[in-house]
Amino acid sequence: MKPAPAFDDVREAARRLDGVAHRTPVLTSRTFDERAGTRAFFKCENLQRAGAFKFRGAYNTVVRLTGAERACGVVSYSSGNHAQGLALAARLLGAPAVIVMPNDAPEVKLAATRGYGAEIVLYERAEGKREEIARRIGAERGMTLVPPFDHPHIIAGQGTAGLELLEEVRDLDVLVVPVGGGGLISGCALAAHALRPSARVVGVEPAQANDSYLSLARGERVATAQAQSIADGLLPTAPGEITFPIMKAHVHSIALVTDEEIADAVRFLHERMKIVVEPSGAATAAALLHGRIEGVRGAKVGVILSGGNVDPNALTAILARA
Amino acid sequence: MKPAPAFDDVREAARRLDGVAHRTPVLTSRTFDERAGTRAFFKCENLQRAGAFKFRGAYNTVVRLTGAERACGVVSYSSGNHAQGLALAARLLGAPAVIVMPNDAPEVKLAATRGYGAEIVLYERAEGKREEIARRIGAERGMTLVPPFDHPHIIAGQGTAGLELLEEVRDLDVLVVPVGGGGLISGCALAAHALRPSARVVGVEPAQANDSYLSLARGERVATAQAQSIADGLLPTAPGEITFPIMKAHVHSIALVTDEEIADAVRFLHERMKIVVEPSGAATAAALLHGRIEGVRGAKVGVILSGGNVDPNALTAILARA
Repeated sequence: MKPAPAFDDVREAARRLDGVAHRTPVLTSRTFDERAGTRAFFKCENLQRAGAFKFRGAYNTVVRLTGAERACGVVSYSSGNHAQGLALAARLLGAPAVIVMPNDAPEVKLAATRGYGAEIVLYERAEGKREEIARRIGAERGMTLVPPFDHPHIIAGQGTAGLELLEEVRDLDVLVVPVGGGGLISGCALAAHALRPSARVVGVEPAQANDSYLSLARGERVATAQAQSIADGLLPTAPGEITFPIMKAHVHSIALVTDEEIADAVRFLHERMKIVVEPSGAATAAALLHGRIEGVRGAKVGVILSGGNVDPNALTAILARA
Repeated sequence: MKPAPAFDDVREAARRLDGVAHRTPVLTSRTFDERAGTRAFFKCENLQRAGAFKFRGAYNTVVRLTGAERACGVVSYSSGNHAQGLALAARLLGAPAVIVMPNDAPEVKLAATRGYGAEIVLYERAEGKREEIARRIGAERGMTLVPPFDHPHIIAGQGTAGLELLEEVRDLDVLVVPVGGGGLISGCALAAHALRPSARVVGVEPAQANDSYLSLARGERVATAQAQSIADGLLPTAPGEITFPIMKAHVHSIALVTDEEIADAVRFLHERMKIVVEPSGAATAAALLHGRIEGVRGAKVGVILSGGNVDPNALTAILARA
């Protein structure tokens, strides 16, 4: 197993990403604050390159490969933002990239990943085993596997989103982060623990994909059945081997939200704040809008909006549901 | 006639707006730059309070009223962003506000304006004369008329959007600004002339609402027939008495765009940059994406995205048109 990353790794990742990743803006909304009873500072990773924070970790991983490793290329599995983030990072660094994607992935995601120059290998979703396929390709073609979250360089890269927010708003009381496999929240928790130890780090999961909630409650990694949610980026079935101990050490609690609450937040962010946020990215805002996090009244709350890559039809359906 | 504003008025407006208006972020997009062949810096006034730059001028005008004037309140006519911007500014400053709106205005705009606490007076659009109605209400109720663009405090307030962009990106070659009645571009032109005199200030109008284009070509104010365009904020039929001389002095040229080009830009900004921009606000991006501005290849171009208040159904229709 790779060693756990520390805050210094987050800081070093920030240096590597400087001038490459966007330093995304931090927005505020008095209307949101009135509704949620907080003072929220939104870190807009939906405005990041390739549309999500995933680019940070992917770039931080590929840039640290040796010249020979880069020349052989990288491989991963993802139907979502990690695919696009890694494809873009690889292109910028001159590395070939192969992404293993399910054969029923939306055409728009396949096109976006291809658009960044990656080769796509399709697999039958029902048969699963995408990680196995990626490993085999890696072995056959000498490519480095870049996992979606459970890797120290990925975690350190994702943590730079939290680092930037904490640098910009120094007196946060709470930091709210969406949780899939835990790459983003564990990186952000390292930054918060170092820069603002008094801040509570709170994760958000869909209620039906509550593996990290259960794992933290039990004190050990729990795997759940594969769930469905409009927050399709938050569906890993267990926290990672590397991410979980960091979460256990530095995450205060996990809040759970329903798909209806997430859809409401997507609408609010679109209609009132004029930004396109995908359901996974809006889960944090949903938790605040719907009172799912305790002790935030009047508090200064950092909120990671993690991505904006929503299928146009899905977005239209959400916006029409009001 | 009120005296023309100068750059000092823009600077003073910036001081009054500090901590009240959002200092909106400046975004970049390598994908946009590749398509347009420029280096674009987008000033996101769609992320401004009340959804558009209009709040700046409205607040700068209401804040300068005497206590007695504020107590009597303000009146204006607008079916768009000026209504919402003025309603919010008046509420923040404790002034009653009356907005004269056409009786066929979209319910969403009426609701938004009412939501900021303004009283709405409806008029029959076919009969026109909304300015006359507003003047009569002002006279009857002792309210100060706050016109949508042709007023020195309005112009100075709108200019702060350009001022902030020029402060953040100091070496712009070109500044591209949408043109309705000219309040925004004349304020921005004052800032550009003072801070970056070598920068060309270029306006953008819908091809069918080209009154400023014609006026600048002829050297005097030309009124056109009322046009239709999806850019419903850019439809005044003539530049203002105060705005036109400033445009004549400091605006290099006006580019014209079609509704199709504007719709394409709205889609690009939504799908690739993850921001909601209304058609009027996207006209500038449209001009660059479709090569309607000369001499911008490789140039550093400031681009004002002026607002984000688009009707959800209209937006859905534009997004579906791809």
